[in-house]
Amino acid sequence: MRAAVIGSGAWGTTFASLLAQAGTPTTIWARRREVAEEINAGTNERYVPGHRLPSTVRATTSRSQAVYGAQLVAVALPSQEARSVLGSLGGTLGEAAVAVSLMKGVELGTGLRMSELLTQVLGLPPGRVAVVSGPNLADEIAAGQPTGTVVAAQDEAVARLVASSCATATFRPYTNTDVLGVELCGAVKNVIALAVGAATGHGMGDNSRATIISRGLVEITRLGLALGARPETFAGLAGVGDLVATCSSPLSRNQAFGRRLGEGMSVDQAAAASRGVAEGARSARAVLDLALAQGVEMPITAGVVAVVEGTATVAEVTDVLLARPRKAEGVHAPPHE
Amino acid sequence: MRAAVIGSGAWGTTFASLLAQAGTPTTIWARRREVAEEINAGTNERYVPGHRLPSTVRATTSRSQAVYGAQLVAVALPSQEARSVLGSLGGTLGEAAVAVSLMKGVELGTGLRMSELLTQVLGLPPGRVAVVSGPNLADEIAAGQPTGTVVAAQDEAVARLVASSCATATFRPYTNTDVLGVELCGAVKNVIALAVGAATGHGMGDNSRATIISRGLVEITRLGLALGARPETFAGLAGVGDLVATCSSPLSRNQAFGRRLGEGMSVDQAAAASRGVAEGARSARAVLDLALAQGVEMPITAGVVAVVEGTATVAEVTDVLLARPRKAEGVHAPPHE
Repeated sequence: MRAAVIGSGAWGTTFASLLAQAGTPTTIWARRREVAEEINAGTNERYVPGHRLPSTVRATTSRSQAVYGAQLVAVALPSQEARSVLGSLGGTLGEAAVAVSLMKGVELGTGLRMSELLTQVLGLPPGRVAVVSGPNLADEIAAGQPTGTVVAAQDEAVARLVASSCATATFRPYTNTDVLGVELCGAVKNVIALAVGAATGHGMGDNSRATIISRGLVEITRLGLALGARPETFAGLAGVGDLVATCSSPLSRNQAFGRRLGEGMSVDQAAAASRGVAEGARSARAVLDLALAQGVEMPITAGVVAVVEGTATVAEVTDVLLARPRKAEGVHAPPHE
Repeated sequence: MRAAVIGSGAWGTTFASLLAQAGTPTTIWARRREVAEEINAGTNERYVPGHRLPSTVRATTSRSQAVYGAQLVAVALPSQEARSVLGSLGGTLGEAAVAVSLMKGVELGTGLRMSELLTQVLGLPPGRVAVVSGPNLADEIAAGQPTGTVVAAQDEAVARLVASSCATATFRPYTNTDVLGVELCGAVKNVIALAVGAATGHGMGDNSRATIISRGLVEITRLGLALGARPETFAGLAGVGDLVATCSSPLSRNQAFGRRLGEGMSVDQAAAASRGVAEGARSARAVLDLALAQGVEMPITAGVVAVVEGTATVAEVTDVLLARPRKAEGVHAPPHE
């Protein structure tokens, strides 16, 4: 068995190390020649600092060479670049090869989830695409910290194959066949993390943060159920787990971006201070549109959209959220009072 | 309308303030005369430092005087002391009075949840007992930080009554009729918080902590479903919300106790350093016994029991948890491989 990873950032490089540690020689595709050369010399200091890569991790700048003969092709690209980078690989994967999305997000314009994009761009049947998602801060995994993750695929056997390919003594995959639910978790959690950051910047404490995480989970779940996902997925490692890890990490870009908004910066100021607009700020509108189309209420997401689009301040959104009428808890609960 | 709160600790005093702010004059029962006198002078510095109480919060050392004429009687006592303190009040509450448990835990010996204990000791029909639980660190609520909470009662109308009695501009109750689920969350979260603390003390990071929170939630949910609770409750404010707030707070006694065990202290040493054994260490065995009786797997709880009872070290438990076979995620998932 051989594997390829398209993308040489922190998560791509770390996942290649996991595959190699679990026994599969893996070739990383890197865009830049100096990164490929450094990986072939055993490190990737910019993205996985201080970590020695296994000797069975190699790198190349040729996409076709990376995937040649690979039974497993994992993709770890920025979600908006995946289509253009992968385009030339359409139809070139082996008969039984499985593609694995390590990406979180929704393609702007098409609204495609990353597994759908892989299916389309690589010309694979949906059953041969899997997704890995969970509380997986790359630097901690590279440092050998134990963690769980979710490997989702329509076909349980494919999920198990991918799970056994990346399982190590400290990286523990659970399988799930709810691909839609796992990908929704990954896309919406950035929006909720931004809201948690905004609350922190606005001076709120652990109760408020936990409330936003918990109510955020309810609204992600509500959207997921409307779209056909399973509720258990949202309560699992790709839902609660990833949301809690992201909201605990001071390194989270979405939290930091939200914190700046909560402290009173404009979106432009926050983008300048954060070197770019955070993923949650980009995807909030797409998520809200999806919710509106389904007739699903997502008040936290709507609040993030209002702040990002400049129609309300964090203080105003907080007031509106708290002024909401008292309701029964739960995903299906109708409003009352 | 008048209310009483039995117990003058941080949560009892803070809840009395919420009731008063929401418009209901409230009398606190305090065991010690000096505490009652201080509350009548407008503060409770030992438990709610720096906070001025509303003038409609009063206190007395007479239980019967506190509850006389009260339509709402909230109880905030240490769970193992509730029976003896409340015994003399049996049958003295008004015809329509509602009792509200602010307590988390299970009575040792009887295995009763706190709402069951109130029903029995106060001689009330189960429909007139409610429970309040959520991400509610008392000091943050006293400081006016916004938070959500859950008010659970078998009868939705009773839950709404209690919710409207304590709702303020920053304390936002959601109602739920799953009393069992809400109380299980409160009892088991201390065990999970202890496990999270142990992982931290053992040197683990945000991924590991988020994994324990997330898998802990799965095992609480599994137990709850076996006992007849609703899965949504565990994904809500009393479940995820309270667990995340507790695991984020450096003040959590259970986390601190676990951290000491993770750093290598024995249970006796940790108890000495923590001034007492944490609630999670006490209740872990009771929770595990309940799980065993239901045929439910709770590996994290079993790990805490093993460490607390001295049959394994934190390092051994971690190894065992990680060595568990790869499985399908989810509450109902059967083991495979």
